[in-house]
Amino acid sequence: MNHTYRLILDCPDRVGIVTRVGEVITSNGGWISEAAHHSDQESNWFFSRFEIQADSLPFGIDELQAKLDPLAKECSMNIRLVDNHQPKRVILMASKGSHCLSDLLDRWKSGDLHCDIPCVISNHDDMRGLVEWYGIPFHHVVIDKEDKAPGFAQVEALVDEYNADCVVLARYMQILPQALCEKYRHQVINIHHSFLPSFIGAKPYHQASRRGVKLIGATCHYVTEQLDEGPIIDQDVARVTHSDNVEDLVRLGKDVEKTVLARGLRAHLEDRILVHGNKTVVFN
Amino acid sequence: MNHTYRLILDCPDRVGIVTRVGEVITSNGGWISEAAHHSDQESNWFFSRFEIQADSLPFGIDELQAKLDPLAKECSMNIRLVDNHQPKRVILMASKGSHCLSDLLDRWKSGDLHCDIPCVISNHDDMRGLVEWYGIPFHHVVIDKEDKAPGFAQVEALVDEYNADCVVLARYMQILPQALCEKYRHQVINIHHSFLPSFIGAKPYHQASRRGVKLIGATCHYVTEQLDEGPIIDQDVARVTHSDNVEDLVRLGKDVEKTVLARGLRAHLEDRILVHGNKTVVFN
Amino acid sequence: MNHTYRLILDCPDRVGIVTRVGEVITSNGGWISEAAHHSDQESNWFFSRFEIQADSLPFGIDELQAKLDPLAKECSMNIRLVDNHQPKRVILMASKGSHCLSDLLDRWKSGDLHCDIPCVISNHDDMRGLVEWYGIPFHHVVIDKEDKAPGFAQVEALVDEYNADCVVLARYMQILPQALCEKYRHQVINIHHSFLPSFIGAKPYHQASRRGVKLIGATCHYVTEQLDEGPIIDQDVARVTHSDNVEDLVRLGKDVEKTVLARGLRAHLEDRILVHGNKTVVFN
Amino acid sequence: MNHTYRLILDCPDRVGIVTRVGEVITSNGGWISEAAHHSDQESNWFFSRFEIQADSLPFGIDELQAKLDPLAKECSMNIRLVDNHQPKRVILMASKGSHCLSDLLDRWKSGDLHCDIPCVISNHDDMRGLVEWYGIPFHHVVIDKEDKAPGFAQVEALVDEYNADCVVLARYMQILPQALCEKYRHQVINIHHSFLPSFIGAKPYHQASRRGVKLIGATCHYVTEQLDEGPIIDQDVARVTHSDNVEDLVRLGKDVEKTVLARGLRAHLEDRILVHGNKTVVFN
Repeated sequence: MNHTYRLILDCPDRVGIVTRVGEVITSNGGWISEAAHHSDQESNWFFSRFEIQADSLPFGIDELQAKLDPLAKECSMNIRLVDNHQPKRVILMASKGSHCLSDLLDRWKSGDLHCDIPCVISNHDDMRGLVEWYGIPFHHVVIDKEDKAPGFAQVEALVDEYNADCVVLARYMQILPQALCEKYRHQVINIHHSFLPSFIGAKPYHQASRRGVKLIGATCHYVTEQLDEGPIIDQDVARVTHSDNVEDLVRLGKDVEKTVLARGLRAHLEDRILVHGNKTVVFN
Repeated sequence: MNHTYRLILDCPDRVGIVTRVGEVITSNGGWISEAAHHSDQESNWFFSRFEIQADSLPFGIDELQAKLDPLAKECSMNIRLVDNHQPKRVILMASKGSHCLSDLLDRWKSGDLHCDIPCVISNHDDMRGLVEWYGIPFHHVVIDKEDKAPGFAQVEALVDEYNADCVVLARYMQILPQALCEKYRHQVINIHHSFLPSFIGAKPYHQASRRGVKLIGATCHYVTEQLDEGPIIDQDVARVTHSDNVEDLVRLGKDVEKTVLARGLRAHLEDRILVHGNKTVVFN
Repeated sequence: MNHTYRLILDCPDRVGIVTRVGEVITSNGGWISEAAHHSDQESNWFFSRFEIQADSLPFGIDELQAKLDPLAKECSMNIRLVDNHQPKRVILMASKGSHCLSDLLDRWKSGDLHCDIPCVISNHDDMRGLVEWYGIPFHHVVIDKEDKAPGFAQVEALVDEYNADCVVLARYMQILPQALCEKYRHQVINIHHSFLPSFIGAKPYHQASRRGVKLIGATCHYVTEQLDEGPIIDQDVARVTHSDNVEDLVRLGKDVEKTVLARGLRAHLEDRILVHGNKTVVFN
Repeated sequence: MNHTYRLILDCPDRVGIVTRVGEVITSNGGWISEAAHHSDQESNWFFSRFEIQADSLPFGIDELQAKLDPLAKECSMNIRLVDNHQPKRVILMASKGSHCLSDLLDRWKSGDLHCDIPCVISNHDDMRGLVEWYGIPFHHVVIDKEDKAPGFAQVEALVDEYNADCVVLARYMQILPQALCEKYRHQVINIHHSFLPSFIGAKPYHQASRRGVKLIGATCHYVTEQLDEGPIIDQDVARVTHSDNVEDLVRLGKDVEKTVLARGLRAHLEDRILVHGNKTVVFN
């Protein structure tokens, strides 16, 4: 993978932002290999993402940051500068269902997901052997139905200890405590097994079957305090018919779930997502 | 089009229904060119559809009906027997938006929708010329905001007078009175511009934009007293991004709306749909 | 529609192109409302498209062009500058099949395709009434099987006379003469009824049926001297099964054809397409 | 899984086949829980598939076969009768690329693919640990570039020894010898990484990139002596753009490959596929 710095920014919209950012970069010889922009007309807000060839600059990422700071201040920009050779640290959380976990592990091993996976956390011990074959530590953290707090305290301790940048709920069948959601705002990615906002809450495939829909779907979103209401990253659907019962929906849905989750995570890892209010800008 | 009789039936499930129906048909030399069946395990209900070559039988549709009656009685069957050379009479209702109307008219003229269109009813006069070019009477029936009853009485009179088998709301922007829905139960087809049950009610594209979904959709359904709650016939979606504003969603949605409506209407015209409770069986 | 100037350019790739173009625009107060870029790594070529708010500049499009010329020369840029308030002049050509023509006319009338349609040319007279209802002149130009030259000479005269920017072959069932293709290079858009490069040549649905494919498709492309080999603008597919015969494929294919053709034409009208060799860059 | 017998048959088309087969079954109390039929009009050939509840019959599968034999003879039927509680024995063959193999193993373990996997054969040793974690024997069979015969002899010996019903080429990067293809006719399933018949042969993603297509695809088919020409079971596509280089196509294609292969294999395992000439009937 080419060594680049990724510059992600958003700010109130005004004339010439891209050009002025571009001047800072190119006046120092920086080669912009990718750039994407979006103006939200309703909120009059501007979003931008650049990839800059690291070796085209005569200095490192800290000096680039320093050179951008005055402009950022002047334009009230939120700015993020990321070295793509510093892989994000992603903790996967799963339960008994293995399709998303197994899919992500294979993508990671084959190099299609550029990140570190410091550990997998599960409330069941079933997948330990598979995870360890990939050389990844596996933590079995029981969530006691009667008192979930100790289990989640252990989860939080692990996330802190491993210094995770991102937590992926790969069909983790527990609702994270609100405090954890707030602490890791826009860092926790979930896959919900319906095309939100349809079928919020429990057993969406049962709801879908009852309503008699002809499409089922899955939604990848950031977790917020409001269950199933977080900013949507990606969605997709699969066609079903009257002959598909709930078990069929569950099975057909798995393909959509794992594909959409992997797409959403990839966009997150490549710093292509900006959250604005309860919506996302996702640059291709 | 090959001349066939279509036999559509549903009844409590039990052993041997298909075979016994088949015996009635084939013992009289009837050639079954298409057959499809479905058992709903939850309700223990059985659904079936046959197409029988008309000229393979030594008698007409009435005698076939008479020969099936005893079995239907014995098995508590709901039975429908349809001559495919008797095109259904379909009234199209539209407002100013022309995409669904124009699409259905072209499909009809090119022979892809086998039906008669005795008239088009609209609450605006804009599309008169186009409709009349197709040789179809056009009725401009104003629905007065202050008092909608007279307008809808006129609509009902037209539907009765033209002896319609089916009414298609091709983006007709008025809500039909409850009495009309009940009178023409499972004969009125609507296209709703969202993937129901998401975004029920008014302005679904505005709702979709606010929620930040990454797919928009459309749903073809039978109209019932409960607005947007009728049995779903077909659905589809289109991909959207952060850069699509409400106007873009409206435009992109049109393609989905017209395609899904045409597919649903076609299934209805070919007697492929059975309604059971609030769900449909749609035989391909 | 917002008044903008569209700047479309391509050139050998080098550091700082976007920034230098941006400087010309923003140093004169120009507001860039959209920008997209692409670097082709194989050919080391750069592509870019800007939309600039017309009223943010203190001068018109000619002076903008003049200000850009030195940079264009220095960087060996191909440059196109387009006023979006000058609708392109698009001639539609059709035969008996009406689905694409009817679809484009409805989109045009409802304002979803921003262009002028100075005339429709057909080798059959069937659609005259519909076209004229839209207020568009209709020319019936017979192409004689024995001697096609006079017919095509008449077509060419019409295209010249109407000063067309673009010709759309909306299922026009004749092969344009090579000289015409060369004269209107990258201005003639065709819809081919297969997912090219499968099923090049005649009767692609028959070929598809023989091969037993499970998807059929359509391809929108610029017409070149090599039949069905021109640069692809857009493609899509529909699912089919063993139960679909050739007539079904033809019918199901129509939906794909008209949707893909409309999408491709829209991209062309919005100057989103750059041709490079035999491939296209299509900016969203 | 419900215990059923699957009856799959094809024969010259004539009146009353389904009814007569149904009589044999239902006159013995047999409960038909699924039935699907297809008449191919071109070849005048009939195809049918029944699922019969095993415990509704007073006898076993052999006696059912005996009772069907006279009818089969009379109608020149090809007949297959399968006990769904006898899982097929499926050997997976893979190379270094793990996405299809890993996907199939997870589906198998989670119970979504009802079969036995007696072993995995690979020309590389990389995936041994993963396969063995699933409790499946792994055979590393080197295919020597200079002399492939000994390797393939070993493959054949393994397939024979394990008494396989089906071999799945899960991105196995070797071309099977013609003799093997003939020996296991319609039992070897391959996934080709293009939407056949486009891009036959080597490096289809490179071919796709050169042609500038806007969709890439994958095709699941039975292997025959003619490379990439076997009967197509299933296909699907994914959208790509000018910004996707060959590496991107390879990555995006993996999702399509593994999904289509799993769908095709599932149809095979459920005896839903009948091959007729070079085409398939696939009953849903």
